[in-house]
Amino acid sequence: MRIDILSVLPELLESPFSHSIIQRAINKGLVEIHLHNIRDYSSDQRHHRVDDYAFGGNAGMVMQIEPIFNAIEALTKERQYDEIIYTSPDGEPFSQSIANQLSLKGNVLILCGHYKGIDQRIRDHLITREISIGDYVLTGGELAAAVMTDAIVRLLPGAMNDEQSALTDSFQDHLLAPPVYTRPAEFNGWKVPEILLSGHEKKIAEWQLQKALERTKKLRPDLLSDDNL
Amino acid sequence: MRIDILSVLPELLESPFSHSIIQRAINKGLVEIHLHNIRDYSSDQRHHRVDDYAFGGNAGMVMQIEPIFNAIEALTKERQYDEIIYTSPDGEPFSQSIANQLSLKGNVLILCGHYKGIDQRIRDHLITREISIGDYVLTGGELAAAVMTDAIVRLLPGAMNDEQSALTDSFQDHLLAPPVYTRPAEFNGWKVPEILLSGHEKKIAEWQLQKALERTKKLRPDLLSDDNL
Repeated sequence: MRIDILSVLPELLESPFSHSIIQRAINKGLVEIHLHNIRDYSSDQRHHRVDDYAFGGNAGMVMQIEPIFNAIEALTKERQYDEIIYTSPDGEPFSQSIANQLSLKGNVLILCGHYKGIDQRIRDHLITREISIGDYVLTGGELAAAVMTDAIVRLLPGAMNDEQSALTDSFQDHLLAPPVYTRPAEFNGWKVPEILLSGHEKKIAEWQLQKALERTKKLRPDLLSDDNL
Repeated sequence: MRIDILSVLPELLESPFSHSIIQRAINKGLVEIHLHNIRDYSSDQRHHRVDDYAFGGNAGMVMQIEPIFNAIEALTKERQYDEIIYTSPDGEPFSQSIANQLSLKGNVLILCGHYKGIDQRIRDHLITREISIGDYVLTGGELAAAVMTDAIVRLLPGAMNDEQSALTDSFQDHLLAPPVYTRPAEFNGWKVPEILLSGHEKKIAEWQLQKALERTKKLRPDLLSDDNL
């Protein structure tokens, strides 16, 4: 899989992509991640300007169509992209199921917004999918791109070892994960539930499912609604 | 405001916190961000181990209570925290209104989970609030902490200049933002809506509100439901 990210601040993404599972997946050749600076595609050779005042006023600075058009054109000449994604708070909410879908793609391009957003014509004509990582506003789309990349890359076969297996993750089966405990069995007077120390595999599995159901009903009953099953 | 972040991979957060509005807010003295490595609080002097196998099996590696207990104890001896937050996919969904609330706090501590999660006793006894940035699973809580920090810090008075003003952000008024456009007025045959070039401020404001309403009704009708107003 190949992920290209277009940003006015690609430096911001350096450390998230050089640690942990993402780095390991890159080293194993499971994914290539390429960061591109939109300023390199500005026709303003002197200041590499990529934003301008909004028509109609009041909205702050807006990212111009031309540098982004040039960047996307240059990249799509080199390869076909399965999706050209724009990260925006008004996009479709990102979810584990979208992460699953995107992890099956070959080439994905992610455009990070910044300032007050991008010229609407980019969204209308160049973007294939708009995704939001949540109902909050960020300085830019860079962290949204990092979040999506992390959620996608860890699902690539071989990215995680058995101990990190995704099979027991929250959301994969419409249930939140059950509580987990490790040694010591008692700390500061706080004890691990006795069933987990019993060695009785079947009863433990029943307890874990029961706790996962309780937690989901209490915290996120929406995951159990008909729409989600 | 002061934000402390506890992580097994604090290096992952270096670049997001050294650019853009977060860096400016730090330089202006509006916020202090301190990263702490949980391994420094491990009682295992040799390997600085912080995880162990889950009791009951099958769940992968779990973060141990002792190093986290020690870290939180050391920090809470130095100052009182308004919230000790754990980032977890089964937490309360992060939102613009939680970002607003947290931006008014003095000291906030964020604990990043990793591996299959943290020993449940930490959640039961040491954490005051559990927050999820969305319905998906990440390698660790570090990117969730970065997202929350970014959403909070940009709201601190003085963090943004007028051109970045948060007043017209999506969600602040239960509406998605209207489309924005900047120069050139025509590119590749694609034109900016004429109303925005008219100079008629009142009509432009009406058009923007109309478009914000249309976009919200189409994409996120839930924002307009009685529960949210």
